Amino acid sequence: MNFIARADCETMDKQDALAGFREKFSIPPGTLYLDGNSLGVMPKGAMARATEVVEREWGVGLIKSWNTASWWDLPVVLGDKIATLIGADAGEVVVTDSTGINLYKVLAAALALVPDRRVIVMEGSNFPTNNYMAQGLLAQLDDSYEIRFVEEHELEQAIDEHVAVVCLTQVHYKSGRVLSMQALTTAAHLVGAVAIWDLCHSAGALPVALNACKVDFAIGCTYKYLNGGPGSPAFIFAASRHQGKVQQPLTGWWGHANPFEFERDYRPAINIRQMLSGTQGVLSMALTEVGLDLALQADMALVREKSKALTSLFIDLVEQRCAGHNLNLVSPRDAQKRGSQVSLSHQHGFAIVQALIARGVVGDFRAPMNMRFGFAPLYIGYVDVWDAVEHLSQILDSEEWRRKEFNQRSAVT
Amino acid sequence: MNFIARADCETMDKQDALAGFREKFSIPPGTLYLDGNSLGVMPKGAMARATEVVEREWGVGLIKSWNTASWWDLPVVLGDKIATLIGADAGEVVVTDSTGINLYKVLAAALALVPDRRVIVMEGSNFPTNNYMAQGLLAQLDDSYEIRFVEEHELEQAIDEHVAVVCLTQVHYKSGRVLSMQALTTAAHLVGAVAIWDLCHSAGALPVALNACKVDFAIGCTYKYLNGGPGSPAFIFAASRHQGKVQQPLTGWWGHANPFEFERDYRPAINIRQMLSGTQGVLSMALTEVGLDLALQADMALVREKSKALTSLFIDLVEQRCAGHNLNLVSPRDAQKRGSQVSLSHQHGFAIVQALIARGVVGDFRAPMNMRFGFAPLYIGYVDVWDAVEHLSQILDSEEWRRKEFNQRSAVT
Repeated sequence: MNFIARADCETMDKQDALAGFREKFSIPPGTLYLDGNSLGVMPKGAMARATEVVEREWGVGLIKSWNTASWWDLPVVLGDKIATLIGADAGEVVVTDSTGINLYKVLAAALALVPDRRVIVMEGSNFPTNNYMAQGLLAQLDDSYEIRFVEEHELEQAIDEHVAVVCLTQVHYKSGRVLSMQALTTAAHLVGAVAIWDLCHSAGALPVALNACKVDFAIGCTYKYLNGGPGSPAFIFAASRHQGKVQQPLTGWWGHANPFEFERDYRPAINIRQMLSGTQGVLSMALTEVGLDLALQADMALVREKSKALTSLFIDLVEQRCAGHNLNLVSPRDAQKRGSQVSLSHQHGFAIVQALIARGVVGDFRAPMNMRFGFAPLYIGYVDVWDAVEHLSQILDSEEWRRKEFNQRSAVT
Repeated sequence: MNFIARADCETMDKQDALAGFREKFSIPPGTLYLDGNSLGVMPKGAMARATEVVEREWGVGLIKSWNTASWWDLPVVLGDKIATLIGADAGEVVVTDSTGINLYKVLAAALALVPDRRVIVMEGSNFPTNNYMAQGLLAQLDDSYEIRFVEEHELEQAIDEHVAVVCLTQVHYKSGRVLSMQALTTAAHLVGAVAIWDLCHSAGALPVALNACKVDFAIGCTYKYLNGGPGSPAFIFAASRHQGKVQQPLTGWWGHANPFEFERDYRPAINIRQMLSGTQGVLSMALTEVGLDLALQADMALVREKSKALTSLFIDLVEQRCAGHNLNLVSPRDAQKRGSQVSLSHQHGFAIVQALIARGVVGDFRAPMNMRFGFAPLYIGYVDVWDAVEHLSQILDSEEWRRKEFNQRSAVT
């Protein structure tokens, strides 16, 4: 590996076909933001859209805006936009609710497709809210269901003819490791199981091919690489072949076949709207579209290439400049198997992340000793990577992290 | 009944102790907004708060704002504020998700409290999303459960020793009729059933005394009389005696006892946070606080008195000025039994509502022939009522409603 100078990174930035996206985002001065895998930065257009929604659509349009400003249709309009990013067709995605609640819906729907099976395969080490929601669902059902928690190397063996649903997160929230959607979906289908994928750390970061892989259902969030804003609503993908043929349990009026007839009894819509439940937070939903529209302008193949280049550069630089400090690479070394983040472990990881934040380099920490650094290709450049490693190297060499109190309270996912 | 002149209404406005609230809200010029029972108007402070959340908290604070801007705590902070409006204690309410999803949570929790019972009593004619959610929940459980749909006059008889849960909406969405929370909760408890109340049309419109009535669980929305904004998040009340002793099924990481430990398995928080599921839409949630803070400045007893006076005035004026046009009063004539809206039926109700909207008088229509007029006491005055009836009278006398096409598409609740 050759020595990489800052000037080399400057050259790479100049040659970066995606470099123009950075000016579409507002990045606070003095901040080197490597946490887009947790909360994406604000698109510069967000405030104008917020003003439009608050002052014009709510303030002036009032109740009429449900129709005239298309509030009612936002889940589908935004869903169609996300569909193009994840290899789905129009009418297969809605934006709504939270990721966990959406998992509950599709997991219940999926289990009903294979009523003679009782096993759900999940990767226990991944972000646990999916585990929790599955456990909450199973507590509602009879005692015969079980979750088979396995890790990556056990997955293939675990997917057997007892399995009803294989429910996996494509990119691991800690390590950034990418599972093979194609291989694992095929493995699920071969034994007659249904495949659900969580795209929280995938959507907007790498090309996803749901229909090419014949995925049954998927969920994901919009506040990471899609820059939808804090807690912006999640999405659901339901393959068109399942729509109108499954039922999800959170049957609110937004999912009714004829919501404005106010019928006493539920009848599901026979399209993707059946995945909706109740009234949606319009402000959060409307702002989501701003980040989404930027992602739609980017070529996802280029995004992925840059993502791999950024993360590889980070790993190379850390190994060149931070050797001897007991940092361990948690993420896969093979860029193909890595999402848009790099995780390093260190015994004093929490304090090191705090020392970095004090210098304006924002990553995050996941217990017990995992430092996560996300590289959102639309607004992070190669010089950013170089500068981040320079700070890390200085902090390690000077042991300036020792001044940070060990006061653990992490931020959201 | 004496003839009521506009000048009489002007006098009433001058004597109105709540009149000062109107200037805190932005009401579009030329609009007489009688739809605050569907979507409340915008507080003038909303835009400043939106700017703060978008530009400062998201744009600059980024991931840190989960802690520094208290995003993580908003459900509880806002819940404590709502608690004071509905007769609950601090720590008994969280703001989160949608009303229907919250009903699913508390209904499942309530059913588990009475495992030997199989009947849910609901009023089938009320806003049906609660019916739908209950039906979705029961489809997950074994076949022995049933919903006993009854109407008001049958309620007392329907609440017998087979009943697990009495689940009622306090103010009827069509008629505005108020049920006795005290009497019906007592009736439920006398037979060993659990009481759930939906406060969608109550919160902010009339004093609610959940703990004085010993209510077990409640839900409600914030976008009507609390002016939280379009689709602003809903709330859940769980009496402190039930917290940590029930489990709700939508067990996401926000309801975990230790969410930042990322444990594999779910352990519920033993406080009101156990009613939370996933990540919340911060923008919609933060804006909710602006309307809530205005409601907190108002004396709910005065709000109720004005509400009764406004709706009574409307009924009196309609009867004085619109006689002979086959309008029928759907709402209770007794103001004690009426929420903050008046519903009138007319064979051509849809067209009449359209004609009113064309004149800037915004009410709404609920099939088959129900015209709803909401009177939000914080921003509607007595002259507004007089003017609205004047428009209605002119529309009926001139039959100008005949020009409106019969193109039914209603707005949201």
